[in-house]
Order: sequence, then structure tokens, then C-alpha cells
Amino acid sequence: MRRELLREVVVPAREARTIEVEAGQVLAVVDLEGRQVGDLAAWLRDPREYLSPGHTLSCLTKLVPEVGDEIFSNHRTPLLRIVRDDVGRHDLIVPCCDPERYSRDYGLADHPSCLASLQRALAADGRDLPLEGEQCWNVFMNNRHEDGRIVTHEPEHGAGATIEMEALADLVVALSACPQDLSPCNAFDPTPMALRVYGES
Amino acid sequence: MRRELLREVVVPAREARTIEVEAGQVLAVVDLEGRQVGDLAAWLRDPREYLSPGHTLSCLTKLVPEVGDEIFSNHRTPLLRIVRDDVGRHDLIVPCCDPERYSRDYGLADHPSCLASLQRALAADGRDLPLEGEQCWNVFMNNRHEDGRIVTHEPEHGAGATIEMEALADLVVALSACPQDLSPCNAFDPTPMALRVYGES
Repeated sequence: MRRELLREVVVPAREARTIEVEAGQVLAVVDLEGRQVGDLAAWLRDPREYLSPGHTLSCLTKLVPEVGDEIFSNHRTPLLRIVRDDVGRHDLIVPCCDPERYSRDYGLADHPSCLASLQRALAADGRDLPLEGEQCWNVFMNNRHEDGRIVTHEPEHGAGATIEMEALADLVVALSACPQDLSPCNAFDPTPMALRVYGES
Repeated sequence: MRRELLREVVVPAREARTIEVEAGQVLAVVDLEGRQVGDLAAWLRDPREYLSPGHTLSCLTKLVPEVGDEIFSNHRTPLLRIVRDDVGRHDLIVPCCDPERYSRDYGLADHPSCLASLQRALAADGRDLPLEGEQCWNVFMNNRHEDGRIVTHEPEHGAGATIEMEALADLVVALSACPQDLSPCNAFDPTPMALRVYGES
């Protein structure tokens, strides 16, 4: 059995892209240049069932999933199993950034956001899928909890850092390379990421 | 100015009920017998905008809201401001319990759940409102974070414990008196709660 790269989609800085992964294949999220956060959403064939960070934490009874852990849907179906994680830091508590994040906190009406990027990517691919910010897993986000506060630190991982997950169901996946350049989230310098799907031949 | 009780709805143990609150009125959630958790959801007039625990934590950058804090919608609109809190323990991270929580974790097909109770209460009132488990704030839930794990402890508050919130918008509110009797969530003994709305005259 030889591992084979089946598909790769580069996600440009401040944009989002979609990819499909079938049960048994491996989905990789790759930070091409380092210190970048990706916001990941996924849907089953019936898109009323989707990846849910909240249900994942509830099922795992932990705040950050680790290698060997499963990622769950809003119906507590295991969708993905983490098989490699070079970073080990993620946030599954706060929703992705959205236009109101920038208008409310920075007074900016037209700043790009993960939510708008994901909506645009889904529309560009003709995919009519339900999307709310709380569906997004903030992959590699270095949020820490300090005396009850949620504090965003700069990521510490370098170029090529990767998380790989075995798909346990057929999924449509969307990833936003987070455009946040006003907080330490992406070390103030949003950069591109990649989605890769591997199979065995 | 005299404070006046405008409406009260008793929420029987293991059931859910709805109530309406207008901007400027005060919504109270009361634990009638003690050591009980309530799962609270709320919607604006356009029900695509709803109370979002995740956005609340994101806006507050803290894990548990306190007196003086606002509770936000999925569009980061402030919906409620906490003006009294006898308990000070809440969980805004894990979704409410649902049928899959009991089938997956306890092998029980027909155990009542907050999600099913809330759906039933909305239907009984003829309210067609979108509801996902991650919309629910686990009021008074004594979840603690211990070395990255989410650990549910028995509530420590007594009969009559109350949280009061000034409404900042007109809202439909639904509360489930959580039916979880298999974990420490409700001290293994689900009991009734009440929703009260106060105005000034």
C-alpha cells in the first residue's frame, strides 16, 4: 500500500476554498508559511449534519482534541480522526471571525473575515450549505485560558506544520486562511494554507 | 418606580417552556428547589439572529459571563445584560443534551433531553424557530476545567437561586429544566425552574 496525493487545493491568504474527502481517505490541513490559523467547516451528504466544535468538546470532555481523538458532528457522529498533529494547539470555543468582529471591535466596515470568505468559497463552488460561525474549528489557533480569560497568543508553529485526519464519512470540507491581521491570531501577517487529500493505492 | 412581576412561567422538571421579554424588562431564571441547571435559548424578531454562547465568549474574551456582562447574538448584538447572579457558575462551551447524548453515552434510546424538550415547547407554542444544541447556554452548570478536561460537578446553589438579566432587545426565550439524571449535572435529581419577567410601573 502506497500513500498517494489525490487532490490539493491551495487556500490563498485571506481567502477560503472547499475540497471533498471520502471515508477512509486522509485530509491534511497544511500551513505553508507558518504561524497561520485556518477555520475549518465540514458537512455530511445531508448538510443539516455538520462538524460541530461544541459537540466535539462535549463528546471528548476536553478543551482541545489530540492525536487519536475524533471530531464530531452536531448529531455526535464521528466525522474525522486525528492521526497526526504537528501543532497541538486549537480553539474550538470561539466562532470564526465575521464582519461584525471587525466593525464592533475595530470600527472597520470592509475587513475580510473567515465567515465571508467561507460563504464566498461555497457560493463559487455552487454549494448551498448552511453556515454559522460556531460551526468553525479554529485550527492551530493559540488561544489560552488565563484566569478565566480567553487570550490570543501568536502561533509558534513553523512553515509546513500539518494536521492529518482520517475521514470517517464522506465530507465536503471548507477552509478559510484566517484574514485576522489586527490581533496576534496569525502573528499579524495572514499567509496561505493548503488542503490535501490522500488515499492509498 | 416600582418593580412589578409581569409574567411567570413554571418550567416543570424535565420539560421546557417559552416566554417573551421586551427591551427594558428584566428576565429572571429561578431554580425553585436548588442544584438544577437550565438550558436557555433566545431569538430576536428575525429568528435568524439568536443568542449565541460562542459569540458571547468571543465578545467577552472570557469563559464565564459575570454581573455587568452582556450576552450576545450570532451577529454580536447585545441581547441581555446580567444584573444579578446568585450562582456565578455557567457553561457556554458544550451544547445542550440531545437524544444522541443519551444513546451514545448511556445506551438509552428514549431518555428526555433539553433539545427535545425545547423543540416540543416551541412546537406547543406554535413557534417555528431554528434550534441547534450549540445555541443553548447551560445556566448554573458547574462544569470546571481541570488540566484541559471538562469535568461536570454537582451544582452547589440552593433553592431560589436566581440570575436576572435586563433585556436589550425584544426576545422570545425558551428554557429547559435539564433532565440529565445520570451525571452530576443536576445532582442526579432534576427539579423544576421558573421564568419571570419584571417591568417597572
